[in-house]
Amino acid sequence: MPELRKDPIIGCWVIIATERAKRPNDFKPEKDAIVGNGSCPFCEGNEKLTPPEVDADRSSATVDSPGWLTRTVPNKYPALENSTSLDKSSSGMFDVMKGVGLHEVIIESPDHDKQLADLSVDQIKRVIAVYKRRSLILGKDERFKYVLIFKNYGLAAGASLEHSHTQLISLPIIPRRVIGELEGMKRYFDQKKKCVFCDMIEQESKEGKRQICENDDFYAFCPFASRSPFEICIAPKKHQHAFTDISEGQIDSFAKILKDILMRIKVLLDNPPYNFIIHTSSLNGNTNELCHWHVELMPKLTKIAGFEWGTGFYINSTPPELASECLREVSV
Amino acid sequence: MPELRKDPIIGCWVIIATERAKRPNDFKPEKDAIVGNGSCPFCEGNEKLTPPEVDADRSSATVDSPGWLTRTVPNKYPALENSTSLDKSSSGMFDVMKGVGLHEVIIESPDHDKQLADLSVDQIKRVIAVYKRRSLILGKDERFKYVLIFKNYGLAAGASLEHSHTQLISLPIIPRRVIGELEGMKRYFDQKKKCVFCDMIEQESKEGKRQICENDDFYAFCPFASRSPFEICIAPKKHQHAFTDISEGQIDSFAKILKDILMRIKVLLDNPPYNFIIHTSSLNGNTNELCHWHVELMPKLTKIAGFEWGTGFYINSTPPELASECLREVSV
Repeated sequence: MPELRKDPIIGCWVIIATERAKRPNDFKPEKDAIVGNGSCPFCEGNEKLTPPEVDADRSSATVDSPGWLTRTVPNKYPALENSTSLDKSSSGMFDVMKGVGLHEVIIESPDHDKQLADLSVDQIKRVIAVYKRRSLILGKDERFKYVLIFKNYGLAAGASLEHSHTQLISLPIIPRRVIGELEGMKRYFDQKKKCVFCDMIEQESKEGKRQICENDDFYAFCPFASRSPFEICIAPKKHQHAFTDISEGQIDSFAKILKDILMRIKVLLDNPPYNFIIHTSSLNGNTNELCHWHVELMPKLTKIAGFEWGTGFYINSTPPELASECLREVSV
Repeated sequence: MPELRKDPIIGCWVIIATERAKRPNDFKPEKDAIVGNGSCPFCEGNEKLTPPEVDADRSSATVDSPGWLTRTVPNKYPALENSTSLDKSSSGMFDVMKGVGLHEVIIESPDHDKQLADLSVDQIKRVIAVYKRRSLILGKDERFKYVLIFKNYGLAAGASLEHSHTQLISLPIIPRRVIGELEGMKRYFDQKKKCVFCDMIEQESKEGKRQICENDDFYAFCPFASRSPFEICIAPKKHQHAFTDISEGQIDSFAKILKDILMRIKVLLDNPPYNFIIHTSSLNGNTNELCHWHVELMPKLTKIAGFEWGTGFYINSTPPELASECLREVSV
């Protein structure tokens, strides 16, 4: 009998298939190669092919030239653009505003052939430090309400360039799912005077059946109401509302667990396309203290997104207990 | 400059790319063939390969044998299963209930090689009549709160069998997006004492720039805050809260506009995969009278679903004004 499970934060229901559950080998991740035009704009030596850099790990005092470990540039094809005013307006019942925002690309390594999972822990630490640095800088801009950090790996997950990179968008609005989470966290807090994420980590640790791995500072598990097969959540063990509050020590732990998790899905699921998103507090909301930042990581294994888009109703063919068991058993 | 547009019902924002907008030829819909095992269970003569039929258009008094125009059967691999009780339970903070529901497949034609767009208007009328008939029957079951009718066409849109079919699921819960819509419709009604959909159709007709086509009873347009390229909405012109209230005359008009729209996207977008969902009122809610049923149709042209899943934040590369202009100009 399938199960209907309620997401303890958002409140939506997910159908979890319990019979004929899909195991890792039942998925055939898409392997479309991303076709480049021969010269990758993210490779060392091609710095002139991108807009001027806004951040870089370099030992020398040069800019837009070789000799960097990470490099951050404005997106050449931004989803949102820099402008001074939002220019809100209405036409009858329709509200519109200028698509004001900043859209940056964090190039994670000069090496074209290494994906994030392949980088050393030290290099991943540098990448996470850039996430923090750019988030802090963009977060100071009063036009924006949210800084979104996300990564698309693989064509099927929406990546258009092969060279490993993360994207960062500052938004004049808070994304709908983030609002839903913040509201859900507030609802739980109002009722129990505790953080729903802290409680969830405590219950997951006690039960153990959806746990993947942990270290001193972070805990990784497959959520109870996972919407997609092998969905993974990585969260700081101690309550921390904003990603930008991450300490130096935590960056080290975060880099280690992120590499560990990425290697596990790479090995177990045959290098699948994936998306990850850092969910953090909004820049100026009054529910910030209730937020508990975390990473949502979704291997892209299924194709049924259209139906889910239309209904907000998810059918997951791999119970998170099975997913986490498989992920625990991978040796990396 | 991109635009941020607010969905007038749900309230979420969508980024609409205005420069470098993607035209029909910029999309390359996936053409993966669905691999069958040689004997399609939906073909005439193979009736024994499905569970026993629950509905069929037949002239003779036989069952589960050839001689039908449409045939409805329980899904052999149902997302939900028939059971007498929901058995709600909790484990700590996690709520779960049995996945009780009915999951049926409406086989739209005995002809394996015809997709819905290729069927005659008369045959499409038969299919719509089955939608209504099965919705009415399943809607009488007090275990259920919602009857969902949806169609996946093409592998990339989630179809697992090639032979043209629609799915119907009765659910013990209302899908999240439907709740969002019902709440949005109520919010608008409380404020303006009018139906948001009636107002929207009036404004769209007046402005004309997002209109695709219309007939006596139905209006088809690309929504102002379309979340995906070439998203289409088809709605009855006169306020009608439930799909099951559709009259014989309206079934004729609905069949004509549905065939017209499906032919337009087939010609314009090179036979793309698509999903459509009938949004209608819940079975026993108190906001039913505020609902205005409609069809949401989404050609599956992009691959960026993972990011949208994680954030609920949509980036649409084709403004609905351009999409509807292209769709208006298609000759079918």
